[in-house]
Amino acid sequence: MPVSLSFADLAPRDRYKLLVATVVPRPIALVTTVDRDGVVNAAPFSFFNVFSEDPAIVVLGLQHKEERALKDTTRNIAETGTFVINLVDEALAEAMNICAIDFPPGVSEVESAGLTLRAGTEVAVPHILEAPFALECRRTVGLSFGPEREIVLGEVVHFHARDGLLDETTLRVSEEAYRPVGRLFANAYSRQSDRFDMVKESHADWEARQAKP
Amino acid sequence: MPVSLSFADLAPRDRYKLLVATVVPRPIALVTTVDRDGVVNAAPFSFFNVFSEDPAIVVLGLQHKEERALKDTTRNIAETGTFVINLVDEALAEAMNICAIDFPPGVSEVESAGLTLRAGTEVAVPHILEAPFALECRRTVGLSFGPEREIVLGEVVHFHARDGLLDETTLRVSEEAYRPVGRLFANAYSRQSDRFDMVKESHADWEARQAKP
Repeated sequence: MPVSLSFADLAPRDRYKLLVATVVPRPIALVTTVDRDGVVNAAPFSFFNVFSEDPAIVVLGLQHKEERALKDTTRNIAETGTFVINLVDEALAEAMNICAIDFPPGVSEVESAGLTLRAGTEVAVPHILEAPFALECRRTVGLSFGPEREIVLGEVVHFHARDGLLDETTLRVSEEAYRPVGRLFANAYSRQSDRFDMVKESHADWEARQAKP
Repeated sequence: MPVSLSFADLAPRDRYKLLVATVVPRPIALVTTVDRDGVVNAAPFSFFNVFSEDPAIVVLGLQHKEERALKDTTRNIAETGTFVINLVDEALAEAMNICAIDFPPGVSEVESAGLTLRAGTEVAVPHILEAPFALECRRTVGLSFGPEREIVLGEVVHFHARDGLLDETTLRVSEEAYRPVGRLFANAYSRQSDRFDMVKESHADWEARQAKP
């Protein structure tokens, strides 16, 4: 049977369950930030995407829940106005999952996950050397939807690519070498190996195809 | 060689190229809207994601370029304050690609793609009967970054699931029956068939695992 549900009748937890199971696959941002004392935090988010290139805008949904790392991310972005989006490929997936653990204060997710930091170029936030790509960002605007929900828009100011992934002359990403991971639901993630192509037609080409017997 | 690029030195077209090739996979929204005369428009977007469940917020990046359907979406959302996100599975992929064609005024993308409309429940915008899930949305806020770039935040007010995808009692989506498609780069899309699971550990479990010889 088809199902029709009013969101006003659902508890937030049930809305969450429906949204994360249906809006898939989501790209993953392993976000690095620093606090006032220079301590680096890393936490993964899949309420994330790119939304514009002029200006170059990414959006992050910060849901705090009970996890310290997420709260740290929110507080650090609020305080420094800067963050780095480290993208996640198959090689980085396990370390990303370790960064999601709720470590106690003073324990570094990055160190626990065996990752290496490299100083930022245009922001004072390091990125993860092992990440396929890293986007240095400055917060443009933050939208608060209550104490535990914030949406942060950031402008990408600098771009890093790991060795072997990007042709610096053509700016082409290697489809063979880059193996991104998508977020599905519950404990599920997806490799992007099962691909197909669809060419967007012009209206003229589409009409010509319709006219054929 | 690793590559490091300042976005200030890049043309918008090159920033676009880098962002769409690296922030992947992206979920796909086939957005339906209506104009003042009741004419229905449908256009696909992958600058899209869910960002919060309380309130239930989705975000759409509207890049106008030269395509009428995209411009129609932006104008219709501005005028009516409502839109529907139709999610895209493997069965709907080809029709979604037809909706991306720049049809002349007066030609319906929905009809050309052979799709069926069903009247909305809480918004006066129809959704696509063939879509696995449809999210009826009301615009919350629009952020303009120049005449050709807008980011729209919408609150999900109603949820539709096609027959066989959602258990109405448990609100569980069938992992077997739902076959979502992700957006990669250029002409590439991905099925989500190549899956793996990672359980997020508690700190206590992680510590116990580290202590083992």
